[in-house]
Amino acid sequence: MARAGEFELIERFTRPFTRGEGVRVGIGDDAAVLRPPPGEELVATVDAVVAGVHFGPRFTPEEIGWKSLAVNLSDLAAMGARPLWALVALATPPRADAARLVRIGRGIAACARRHGIAVVGGNVTAAPVLSVTVTVLGSVRTGRALLRSGGRPGDLLVVTGTLGDAALGLEPGAGPGPRARQRRPRPRLALGRGAVGVATAAIDLSDGLLQDLGHLCRASGLGARLEADRLPLTAAYRAANRGSATPLEGALTGGEDYELLLAVPPSRLGALRRAAREARTRVTVVGALEARRGVRVVLGGRPLRTRRSGHDHLQGGHLLGRGRGRA
Amino acid sequence: MARAGEFELIERFTRPFTRGEGVRVGIGDDAAVLRPPPGEELVATVDAVVAGVHFGPRFTPEEIGWKSLAVNLSDLAAMGARPLWALVALATPPRADAARLVRIGRGIAACARRHGIAVVGGNVTAAPVLSVTVTVLGSVRTGRALLRSGGRPGDLLVVTGTLGDAALGLEPGAGPGPRARQRRPRPRLALGRGAVGVATAAIDLSDGLLQDLGHLCRASGLGARLEADRLPLTAAYRAANRGSATPLEGALTGGEDYELLLAVPPSRLGALRRAAREARTRVTVVGALEARRGVRVVLGGRPLRTRRSGHDHLQGGHLLGRGRGRA
Repeated sequence: MARAGEFELIERFTRPFTRGEGVRVGIGDDAAVLRPPPGEELVATVDAVVAGVHFGPRFTPEEIGWKSLAVNLSDLAAMGARPLWALVALATPPRADAARLVRIGRGIAACARRHGIAVVGGNVTAAPVLSVTVTVLGSVRTGRALLRSGGRPGDLLVVTGTLGDAALGLEPGAGPGPRARQRRPRPRLALGRGAVGVATAAIDLSDGLLQDLGHLCRASGLGARLEADRLPLTAAYRAANRGSATPLEGALTGGEDYELLLAVPPSRLGALRRAAREARTRVTVVGALEARRGVRVVLGGRPLRTRRSGHDHLQGGHLLGRGRGRA
Repeated sequence: MARAGEFELIERFTRPFTRGEGVRVGIGDDAAVLRPPPGEELVATVDAVVAGVHFGPRFTPEEIGWKSLAVNLSDLAAMGARPLWALVALATPPRADAARLVRIGRGIAACARRHGIAVVGGNVTAAPVLSVTVTVLGSVRTGRALLRSGGRPGDLLVVTGTLGDAALGLEPGAGPGPRARQRRPRPRLALGRGAVGVATAAIDLSDGLLQDLGHLCRASGLGARLEADRLPLTAAYRAANRGSATPLEGALTGGEDYELLLAVPPSRLGALRRAAREARTRVTVVGALEARRGVRVVLGGRPLRTRRSGHDHLQGGHLLGRGRGRA
């Protein structure tokens, strides 16, 4: 088969994408025309996944597509927003197999369908390695977005789900649980929306708990005490770290968890737990915000030293920086 | 100086960007929070520029930044939209000079300021070669966006500015005019907005007139007759093509002109000319839409054969495909 030209490829790549709410013109014109929900503010973010940095040769094309959209939806979840639309920029080596690109499109479409959003813009360009850059747009009732900056001293720190498995999923012998966490992250959109009016601040956990907690603290002008004994860990994580000298490091700094970290006043913890039940999402109190700056990690009541602060996307963090390939 | 980590770099990269209309939360949270203008629809598009494909070693960092935003604004111009906000995803080799990245940021900021828009989202990631992927959001009065599909038989085909100089600007000895057209395209936003309610269809000229006219014709379910004698050409273009066996090829297929192609009913040509005067933009009638499918190019009343149909972004078009490096 002759290699598809750009226009044919765009069409094949975008065919599985559904039209959705508020889409007056989707893919196929110079730009999309969209109707934002009245009375709501728009929430917008962009993120890229790059071959060798965010995914490796063991990722299926569908997993690459899924992850490229899911990591963006996690940012919307942290704002308490409802996702509406995505724009996808694919960069591909000129010799790439068109069928593979179409499978990436299917992965994006699967994630889009799962969350009821439409892909309304697309672009395909040549580049030396494969990458997918996604912009997502969502909405939130005016003035209600969860920001990083709203935390107050005494607010409890709450994390969703479990930590450290995504980083574990990079290891060659990783089991299906950690592998799925690494390759098909599940953005916490339902919990994020449920936390609107309950949490005072929120951030998504993409760079590792310690680093992202640091961002939230700086934005709120506060510090925090983190109780490492309370970190929610899976049996797979515990088994993989048994006997390690630093068994909590992956959970504290591994990155790519795509869970949420919320600041919740103690008086609203009940409301958050109700929202969590409705969203079928586990939540765990792991510490509290404090007026004193800096993040203090304690384990069994004593300070814990950590070696690394988190995941540096530019350096490739633990992925490239430690000379380890991607799964 | 130690190389900047991602977070420091994002801050330095985004510092020159201005806040703007409707921006409640810009760069610095998980996502931007934006207030779309009431009574308007949102217009959104994404496009990438990649080292070796869309820019070469002779581009200054400021030119790379400018071009990455300008090519997107050209898409908004073709919709008749007013640009509001941009999100910028930078992919950079890990060893890139931070000062160079900051200069790219300045180029983006210069283009943003020129058009009164705010950069509200940013992302920096590692990648083997430099690329800048920009999403722009704008607005247009509800139901008034210019689409590719609105053309009617008999509508005149009108192009803005001049054609072929951007492709000429890739040649080693290119003069300052063509070089500027290649490196610092000027999106036709004022004319695009002025054409709302006047033109029946519009498209921006990024792939070469012939190919983009083909898109407009297909979207409108029509064909066209293009009078090649009428193509608006600069003195620089004419001089460079003097003696060529195919002197019009660059203007027909060169790509990257970032002019607009409009379909205008003859009865509204006067209104378009008035809008063009207000926008200080040259407009030229180059043909007409016809009910019969296909694009017919005529020169001196006789059919003109063309060798190439246009610019294929995936193949790198005339840039990579012909084995010629970027300026």
